[in-house]
Amino acid sequence: MNRKKIWWMVGLALLVESGLMLLPIVAGLCFGERPGAYMISALITAAAGFLLSRLRSADDTIYARDGFVTVTLVWLVMSAFGALPFVLSGDIPSYVDAFFETMSGLTTTGASILNNIEGLSKASLFWRSFTHWIGGMGVLVFMMAVLPMSGEHSMHIMRAEVPGPVVGKLVPRAGETAKILYYIYGALTAAETLFLWFGGMSFFEALLHAFATAGTGGFSTRNSSVASFNSPYVETVIALFLVLFGMNFNLYYLMLKGKIREALKSEEFRWYIAVICITTAAIAAGIFGIYGNVWDTVRNAFFNVMTIMSTAGFCTVDFTTWPQYTQVLIVLLMFIGGCAGSTGGGLKLSRVMLLVKNAGTDVRRMVSPRRVKRVRMDGKCVSDSVLTTVGTFFFLYILILLICTFVVSFDGNDFTTNFTASLSCISNVGPGLAKVGPKYNYAGFSDLSKIVMSVTMLAGRLEIYPVLILLMPKKTGRG
Amino acid sequence: MNRKKIWWMVGLALLVESGLMLLPIVAGLCFGERPGAYMISALITAAAGFLLSRLRSADDTIYARDGFVTVTLVWLVMSAFGALPFVLSGDIPSYVDAFFETMSGLTTTGASILNNIEGLSKASLFWRSFTHWIGGMGVLVFMMAVLPMSGEHSMHIMRAEVPGPVVGKLVPRAGETAKILYYIYGALTAAETLFLWFGGMSFFEALLHAFATAGTGGFSTRNSSVASFNSPYVETVIALFLVLFGMNFNLYYLMLKGKIREALKSEEFRWYIAVICITTAAIAAGIFGIYGNVWDTVRNAFFNVMTIMSTAGFCTVDFTTWPQYTQVLIVLLMFIGGCAGSTGGGLKLSRVMLLVKNAGTDVRRMVSPRRVKRVRMDGKCVSDSVLTTVGTFFFLYILILLICTFVVSFDGNDFTTNFTASLSCISNVGPGLAKVGPKYNYAGFSDLSKIVMSVTMLAGRLEIYPVLILLMPKKTGRG
Repeated sequence: MNRKKIWWMVGLALLVESGLMLLPIVAGLCFGERPGAYMISALITAAAGFLLSRLRSADDTIYARDGFVTVTLVWLVMSAFGALPFVLSGDIPSYVDAFFETMSGLTTTGASILNNIEGLSKASLFWRSFTHWIGGMGVLVFMMAVLPMSGEHSMHIMRAEVPGPVVGKLVPRAGETAKILYYIYGALTAAETLFLWFGGMSFFEALLHAFATAGTGGFSTRNSSVASFNSPYVETVIALFLVLFGMNFNLYYLMLKGKIREALKSEEFRWYIAVICITTAAIAAGIFGIYGNVWDTVRNAFFNVMTIMSTAGFCTVDFTTWPQYTQVLIVLLMFIGGCAGSTGGGLKLSRVMLLVKNAGTDVRRMVSPRRVKRVRMDGKCVSDSVLTTVGTFFFLYILILLICTFVVSFDGNDFTTNFTASLSCISNVGPGLAKVGPKYNYAGFSDLSKIVMSVTMLAGRLEIYPVLILLMPKKTGRG
Repeated sequence: MNRKKIWWMVGLALLVESGLMLLPIVAGLCFGERPGAYMISALITAAAGFLLSRLRSADDTIYARDGFVTVTLVWLVMSAFGALPFVLSGDIPSYVDAFFETMSGLTTTGASILNNIEGLSKASLFWRSFTHWIGGMGVLVFMMAVLPMSGEHSMHIMRAEVPGPVVGKLVPRAGETAKILYYIYGALTAAETLFLWFGGMSFFEALLHAFATAGTGGFSTRNSSVASFNSPYVETVIALFLVLFGMNFNLYYLMLKGKIREALKSEEFRWYIAVICITTAAIAAGIFGIYGNVWDTVRNAFFNVMTIMSTAGFCTVDFTTWPQYTQVLIVLLMFIGGCAGSTGGGLKLSRVMLLVKNAGTDVRRMVSPRRVKRVRMDGKCVSDSVLTTVGTFFFLYILILLICTFVVSFDGNDFTTNFTASLSCISNVGPGLAKVGPKYNYAGFSDLSKIVMSVTMLAGRLEIYPVLILLMPKKTGRG
């Protein structure tokens, strides 16, 4: 392991973070606030970053393990420093709460411990939503886009930070790929901001909701989330942009290259549209009696399918009052999540597809043992090692979900609360059922639960392996 | 597919079942009842069996698919006919209820739709508990023990009916293996009957509880289950025998052969003891405040750990009033279940061990890609194909659990009830949490839910693949 190089990277990330903290300072100043807490935090973060970035190793070797460890450490340290302004400004007095909120922001979970969001300073509102935007596409992917880095190192990092079972580089150089991803990300965010602004939101709130949509995070500027705007237009715009941000970004690249047909042929994309349509219809059938007309019913069903499947977790209605079967569908969508290579969380649709296809093949092989095993995706054979890794990933996902449920249960809440809160954390959704339903938040949990949930969110966002590798004894880590 | 041969086997199974129905007739007569319903049922079953057993195929070829299809059909048809006496005697007027109860008995789930168990005729009480004993070791394994069958056919059947990731034949001939398994099974059942009888139970109730323990089923003769005897002795005897029936029966064979050391070295056995000790201690710590003294605390913790982990599901206390974390532990034990080759349900401990070991290896390989992948169990390398199958099994387990949860949720119960009822069915446990807790039963579910749960129990008992293969389009099934 190349410790110096790892900490050097962490230092760089902190320098970037301190730079990003200038934006909430600007936001605060625009609204006549005195964002001293943000200035101090930026200085502390910059100082820590500067000290760490002085560590330059003579040894430039990168081990496979190092990429994973770097990513996990960067996310942990950025959450630790990102929590500072919340505490220093007095907006979130408890450090554990602030850490939870920052981790929830960066991992784009959107689970909050705040009872009164509207009471925050504008600077804090901005920073909170901005963490979604930073975390959505990945901090290190951003650094790769702006800093010159060696190819090997970048690929290790990209593999650890970009969601999905297989990472496809768009162009030969990882740095270029990162740049393209951020261009698309930025353009879509800008477009949504304009749509929301045009629809009557203030520019500030339009921008912050666009950040939260883009990262599929789900933090709002209002206590009652998107419901507060009481605007079918706003809900529809956000739901449609959630469809866009839950898609694999590679498809946009293909479209930009004019290969629109190829993009639309993607199997994952087709399943994605199918799952959205089927679950929307199934939920609409169950809630028609509540809303009484087709338009309201479909809009509410569609918005909530998208907010859960994209793992954003914005709230417009209290779906815990809907029929029980719709709530089970919501839990199923929490498991699935968005597409690979999107900003959404969950298992990722392509993993679920591989699991289903692999299971079908295995069952068939049981009756015809001589049959050659072949699982195809987009017409190509999927290698055995990818299939095995996906199977292991699924097991670890459920294992971490159950361990988190166990730890959280010490707070004495009911099983539904514990289970769906944990699922919401590992899938980076935000709300769950029962006491973590859309009307509630995570304020009531103990500090221990909040810390374990923070780690669970991180495991979900980084897709488990990097976090486990950091926790694993070092002796096994030599490449 | 050799349809004639399959239906011929189903016919034989029905003939065996009609023979087994003579026992509740005897039991009823002993208590001065007129078990006419059982006589009629035995005749109908015998007639159906006789007709089917006339189908003898000239073609004696057995396809791999046939073994699986035979097993699933035998279990379905035996439940369908086994439900008859309950309906005809008026003890369970609804056929769907009777089918659910019989399937729950045969699969050794022990989930009941009866509100007043003590109101049943003695014949029905006997039949109900006896289904546990029949299903525990497997109907077809029994037939193999008593009927001459071809070796190839037997192994297909044995693989489909005996629980666990790998089926080890004890002796070269499958029929001999089956005989040995039934000798051990019978001897342990007889021993438990004596212990319970000696402890003050009537012989009838001692025998019936021994049946339910042996099959790790959980049906009792009393409305309040084992709690009704109010006897620490009875509870302890049952809990200790549950430890024995939750073990891999191969170990008994090794012990009988004098290889006690080798038996005790089994990794699964060591994990089994470790899981029992750790969870008992963890639960005891949480309920000490309720019982106030060490003996009662440990006894209650131990009994409930064993009743859930062995997947019997006897009840002595309402553990839904215990601290929440103990309930999450109970859910975890429901997932794990007994050892491979035992009469217990669940994922089986050895599968969980393989999943954990495989995940550890996969994580390590991610940082050292050149490392040779090796997962060991009892010192031997586990083949990749076994590991893949175990991974697929886990995915299908969770998938069926979630599908069952979804269907059951249409009845309008809360998520905890739906989820734990479904988990209880696929793991063949019996009780769950909330409205399927130890104080409640499954009477309140709709007929649709009861049928889906019955199929789920069968999928759990036969370890999924046989049931899926029956449901799969035939074209893919040629061996």
